[in-house]
Amino acid sequence: MGRVTVRRPVRKLTASGQRRRPDALAAEEPLELRVSGKPLAVTMRTPGHDVELAHGFLLSEGVIGSPADIASARYCDSVDDQGRNTYNVLDLALAEGVPEPDTGVERNFYTTSSCGVCGKAALDAVKLRTRFDPSGSPLSVTPHTLAGLPDALREQQRVFATTGGLHAAGLFTADGSLLAVREDVGRHNAVDKVLGWALLQDRLPLHDCGLLVSGRASFELVQKAAMAGIPLLAAVSAPSSLAVELAEENGMTLVGFLRGESMNLYTGDKRIHQS
Amino acid sequence: MGRVTVRRPVRKLTASGQRRRPDALAAEEPLELRVSGKPLAVTMRTPGHDVELAHGFLLSEGVIGSPADIASARYCDSVDDQGRNTYNVLDLALAEGVPEPDTGVERNFYTTSSCGVCGKAALDAVKLRTRFDPSGSPLSVTPHTLAGLPDALREQQRVFATTGGLHAAGLFTADGSLLAVREDVGRHNAVDKVLGWALLQDRLPLHDCGLLVSGRASFELVQKAAMAGIPLLAAVSAPSSLAVELAEENGMTLVGFLRGESMNLYTGDKRIHQS
Repeated sequence: MGRVTVRRPVRKLTASGQRRRPDALAAEEPLELRVSGKPLAVTMRTPGHDVELAHGFLLSEGVIGSPADIASARYCDSVDDQGRNTYNVLDLALAEGVPEPDTGVERNFYTTSSCGVCGKAALDAVKLRTRFDPSGSPLSVTPHTLAGLPDALREQQRVFATTGGLHAAGLFTADGSLLAVREDVGRHNAVDKVLGWALLQDRLPLHDCGLLVSGRASFELVQKAAMAGIPLLAAVSAPSSLAVELAEENGMTLVGFLRGESMNLYTGDKRIHQS
Repeated sequence: MGRVTVRRPVRKLTASGQRRRPDALAAEEPLELRVSGKPLAVTMRTPGHDVELAHGFLLSEGVIGSPADIASARYCDSVDDQGRNTYNVLDLALAEGVPEPDTGVERNFYTTSSCGVCGKAALDAVKLRTRFDPSGSPLSVTPHTLAGLPDALREQQRVFATTGGLHAAGLFTADGSLLAVREDVGRHNAVDKVLGWALLQDRLPLHDCGLLVSGRASFELVQKAAMAGIPLLAAVSAPSSLAVELAEENGMTLVGFLRGESMNLYTGDKRIHQS
């Protein structure tokens, strides 16, 4: 898997002594995203699926909504001290008529200059408007189908298996099929890679899919799902308060603590049906 | 604990049926940090210890190095639709002579306009220079002391106990005492809060302390520890490749997978001594 993992010696200490052994680490490297040659963002990511990551990121930010919105994506000719391309700088050109993203400090969050950030007002201030409203999606999933997803995800986490160090995200359908699974040191990157995959496959809006994440559900992840039109987010761990609020406001379904047949349903009960 | 947790009803599904019950969620709200009235950053954080968070963030960014570098920190008079202060906007004034932070998109990462971001070059491109070089610290800790830390951290994780949804960071001394523990929905925020606490206590540089984190060790967390002069980072889960590289380059000690008496020592062996 090339740069997805990095091998290093490690000293392993246990109650019965210590030994040196080789260890596989999840690779983490910076990726700079440029739009029309101008730096937009730098993310610390696990190399691989960078073009998907870039598409998912721009979708999440509300910049693009279809594959046609990107005219080209190419790595810059950036080289390291041995003259090899680093593949850590990706330049994207937007299609004609697609507005350039705002690059201000608060671009991810604020659309007004209001000083108040709290409760409902906070939500309004930080959320982006999705072009793929998920609220009307008739997606319906049984608890039993949901229960099987974390194991299915884990089976496809090839890098986690060797490093124990990666987050994963997977896109699934009502029958429990995983359409795509991506891993990354950053959970937001794992989600962006999956969303970018779907966008490049021209599958948006994802009204017929759920998104599964290996960790917690934050505001940011609910936002990303909403931007792709996904009506259901299932997380293996806890959601935050704002994640639940945003899911509710968007008419989405949020499942947390998905562990075996046990799970918590925070909002959007209508999409979970006992079979 | 006020806004640290939020209560909501949840539908709990198990193999034997379902029931509604109240659930406590980890609170997540945006905090806007302003310097001299200008927006610098917005972070999604768990409310509480915001002034510490702001100090730790500015320390991590290389903007400040002592409590005297901040002239004042106060919440803006931002109100929600019921006229209550939101406490989600914090304005900081720097002391005279402290340069204003750069607010460009790449402020956290790049000091050059070089296009190459890879391996050693990547590390040079993204790392900040610390004013408290940790490499010469004589801190020495036994594996047995390290082994006791995760349980001690967990005991102080009051919010995690009720929500299962928070990351934690703790500052500890060679004898295993935890000086300060902070929790947050964002692991970088938990670390910033602990570092800000230490800065406000005028304890920098933290050459006599280790930093314990409840999750994984990323590049960013090693960077934050280095910026405070901390020579040892211990993580309950896996480190990334760049975390290990940066720790090595900074002459720090990095421990991962700290679980009971078992742990991995990635670099900086000199500070771990069998008693």
